[in-house]
Amino acid sequence: MHDGDPTGGSQELPDRSPSHSVGVVATRYAHFAEPLTLRSGAVLPSFTLAYETYGRLNAARSNAILICHALSGDAHVAGFHTSDPDERPGWWDEAVGPGKMFDTDRFFVICSNVLGGCRGSTGPASSAPDGKLWGLRFPVVTVTDMVKAQARLLDHLGISRLFAAAGGSMGGMQALEWAVQFPQRVANVLFIASTPRSSAQNIAFNAIGRAAIVNDARWNHGDYASDAAPDGGLAVARMVGHITYMSDHSLETKFGRRLQGYEAIPYTLGEPEFAVESYLGYQGEKFVSRFDANSYLYITKALDYFDIADGYESLEAALATTEAGYLVVSFSSDWLYTEVQARELSEALRAVGRPVEEHRVQALYGHDSFLVEVETMTTIVGGYLVRQWEGEANALALKALAS
Amino acid sequence: MHDGDPTGGSQELPDRSPSHSVGVVATRYAHFAEPLTLRSGAVLPSFTLAYETYGRLNAARSNAILICHALSGDAHVAGFHTSDPDERPGWWDEAVGPGKMFDTDRFFVICSNVLGGCRGSTGPASSAPDGKLWGLRFPVVTVTDMVKAQARLLDHLGISRLFAAAGGSMGGMQALEWAVQFPQRVANVLFIASTPRSSAQNIAFNAIGRAAIVNDARWNHGDYASDAAPDGGLAVARMVGHITYMSDHSLETKFGRRLQGYEAIPYTLGEPEFAVESYLGYQGEKFVSRFDANSYLYITKALDYFDIADGYESLEAALATTEAGYLVVSFSSDWLYTEVQARELSEALRAVGRPVEEHRVQALYGHDSFLVEVETMTTIVGGYLVRQWEGEANALALKALAS
Repeated sequence: MHDGDPTGGSQELPDRSPSHSVGVVATRYAHFAEPLTLRSGAVLPSFTLAYETYGRLNAARSNAILICHALSGDAHVAGFHTSDPDERPGWWDEAVGPGKMFDTDRFFVICSNVLGGCRGSTGPASSAPDGKLWGLRFPVVTVTDMVKAQARLLDHLGISRLFAAAGGSMGGMQALEWAVQFPQRVANVLFIASTPRSSAQNIAFNAIGRAAIVNDARWNHGDYASDAAPDGGLAVARMVGHITYMSDHSLETKFGRRLQGYEAIPYTLGEPEFAVESYLGYQGEKFVSRFDANSYLYITKALDYFDIADGYESLEAALATTEAGYLVVSFSSDWLYTEVQARELSEALRAVGRPVEEHRVQALYGHDSFLVEVETMTTIVGGYLVRQWEGEANALALKALAS
Repeated sequence: MHDGDPTGGSQELPDRSPSHSVGVVATRYAHFAEPLTLRSGAVLPSFTLAYETYGRLNAARSNAILICHALSGDAHVAGFHTSDPDERPGWWDEAVGPGKMFDTDRFFVICSNVLGGCRGSTGPASSAPDGKLWGLRFPVVTVTDMVKAQARLLDHLGISRLFAAAGGSMGGMQALEWAVQFPQRVANVLFIASTPRSSAQNIAFNAIGRAAIVNDARWNHGDYASDAAPDGGLAVARMVGHITYMSDHSLETKFGRRLQGYEAIPYTLGEPEFAVESYLGYQGEKFVSRFDANSYLYITKALDYFDIADGYESLEAALATTEAGYLVVSFSSDWLYTEVQARELSEALRAVGRPVEEHRVQALYGHDSFLVEVETMTTIVGGYLVRQWEGEANALALKALAS
C-alpha cells in the first residue's frame, strides 16, 4: 500500500473525535509455533503476525471483516498509535471507523501485516531460529501463503468465518484467495482495484523495481545491516511503483511542467528541476525509512506469482469451488490493475453462477482512485456491506421463524 | 531509439540486395570548430557530429530529408557497416532504401547522432578541449541545441533547405523544432509518435531512469572509466524506458505469464522465472554495451526540457512562425507519447492555418508501433512524401511556364 495520500494531503490536524475515528489503537503480535508449509514446498518453522483490530466482535462472532493490505502497507489501517495531535492516522483511516465504509459500529475489523512483510510480521528482515536475520534464506512466499498465515490468526482470534475479506490492489488478491482456499470461511469478497492474475506488464514493473534494489552495492546479495541498507535502490523501486499508482491525468494536473523552486529552468543535471521529479524523489526517500529492501523483493515476487487459477484448470474452475458473494470494483484510469482485468474476474464469476456486484467507476486518479474516491467508495463498499449484512440477518430471522 | 526489433526479430539473414538495401555504408564525422551557444547560455567551444547519408543529393540540392533519431539511436539508420552476412542493419532499415517509405531512389537521406550522444557525436563521453573526458562538465543540451548543431551539418553539406525533417519519438521533437527554429529551411515536418512537449508522466519515467544510474556506485558522480561504467544502473534505466515503448497488449501476447525455461515456477529469488523478466534483463544488458550512462542522463534531460512553446506565449504562437507542411502520426496504443499529445499539435497547427495531414493509427504495439507497423507507415509516410514531392515539382513547373 502506498500512503493513502497521493494528492499531497491536507496539513490540517487529523480528526480524532470518537464519532469519526477509532482513536488510539495498538498493534498486537500473534506468534505461531506450528510450522507452515508454503506453496513452494518449503516449511517455515514458526512465524509472527502483527495485527490490529477495530470495533467489537459480536457474540455470534459473525461480524468480522479482514482487510488485506497492498504491497507496502501494514497492519495499521486506522486510528493513531499515540496521542500526538500531529500524528497521521493509519493508511486507510478514511475507510475504517464509526459510520465509515467499514463501519466499526457494526463490524469487527482486522488487518494483519502480510507474511514476508517488514512491519511486524515475519519476513526476511526478521530473526530466523538460529538467531541471525533470515535475509535471503527466508523462503519465497505467495499470496496463498499470506492467506494461510492469516487463517491461523483467525483461529487464534476464535473466528471461524469472515463476514468479508476485503482489499485493494494486492489486498484484493488476498481477499479472492480467501474464497478459493477457504470457501466456508468467507461470506463476501470485496475485490477492489485488483486483478485475478498478474499480467506480463505487472510482472515487468516489479522486475524493474527488484533490479534497482539488487543493483545497489549496499544490497550485498541481501546481506546488509539495517543502518547500511540499499536505500537508493529501494527508493528507485518505490518511484517505479509510485508512478504506476498515478494516472497520466493525476501527474499532469498535480505537476504538469511546473518547476521546483525555480522561475526558469536552471539547466543543471544536479537537483531536480521539475516538481514531478522532486515529488517522486521525496516519495522514494520517505519510503525507505519504513520499508525493508529484501521484503520488497519477496512481496513483489508474491505479486508476480499471483494467479488465482494456480492449481486449477481455469479461472472458472478455481472460482467454481468458492461459496462467497463478490463485490468487484475497478477504476477507469487505473492502468496498473485495469478494468479489463477486473472484468475477467466478474465474467468468470458469473459464468460459474457466483453472485457478483460489479462497479466500474469513472475516476481520474489511476490506481490510487480506490484511496482517493472516498465518497464513491463509501457508497459502493459501505452500501454493499450493509445490504449483505441486513440480508444475512433477515435470512437468519426467517430461518428462525420457520424452525 | 530502441532497437527497432521489439517483436524479437527474425533469425533470417538480412536482405542486402541493391533493390532492397542501401548496402554497405560508412559513418562520417564532421568537426565544427566554431563555438555553439546553447539554450542554457553555456558555450560549447567545438563539436563533432557523426552522420550517415543514403541516396544522392540532386543537382538542385532540393531532395534532402533529415531523419532525426530517438533517445538511444544513432546515425546508422540503414544498411550495413561491413560485408558480414550476419550483421544486423541500421535501426530503421525498413524505412530507408530503394522503394521504401524514405525512398533513396528519390531522396537524399541524412541522419546524424545528436549532440550529447555517445555514438560518435560530441557528448559527455567525448574528450573536452583539455584532453580529459567531458563527463558532467559537458554543458546541458536541449532539443533546440541538437537542431542547431544539425543545421551546422547541413551548412557543411551545402544544403540550405530540407525537403523534410522527420522522426519518431525524440526524433519527432527535433523535426518540429526544425520548423520553429529554421522556418525557411524545412518544407515538411514528419512528426511521428511524438509530443509537442514532455508531460509530467514523461518526465517522471525519465527521472526514474536517471535515479537508477546515479544510484549505481560505479557512476561516481559521472566520473567513471568506460570499463568500469555504471552498467547495472544504466540497464535498469533501459528497462524502465523499454517498458514504456511496449503496450500492455504487446507484453501480454509476447510473454503473458510464460516461464523462462521452467515447466513450473521454481519459487526462487535468484534467476528470472518469467519470460518477461528475462527479456527485460536482456534488453538492459544489451543496451549497456552500446550506450554511455552520462549520455543517457543528458539526453533524457533534453527530452524533459522539450516544450516547443519554449520562448513563445503559447503553442500556437510558436507554430504560427513556421512555414512547413506537417504530417502528424500517432498510434492508439502508444501510452508514452499519446494520441492526445499528437492531437494537441494538430489542432494548434490548424488553428494557425498550417497545412496538416493527421493519422491516428489503430495499432497494438504501443510506442514501438512506429517501427513495427512497416506497411502502414510506408503507405502514410511514403505516400505523404511522394504527394508533397510531386506537388512541389508541379508548382515549380507551373511557375516556370508562367514566367
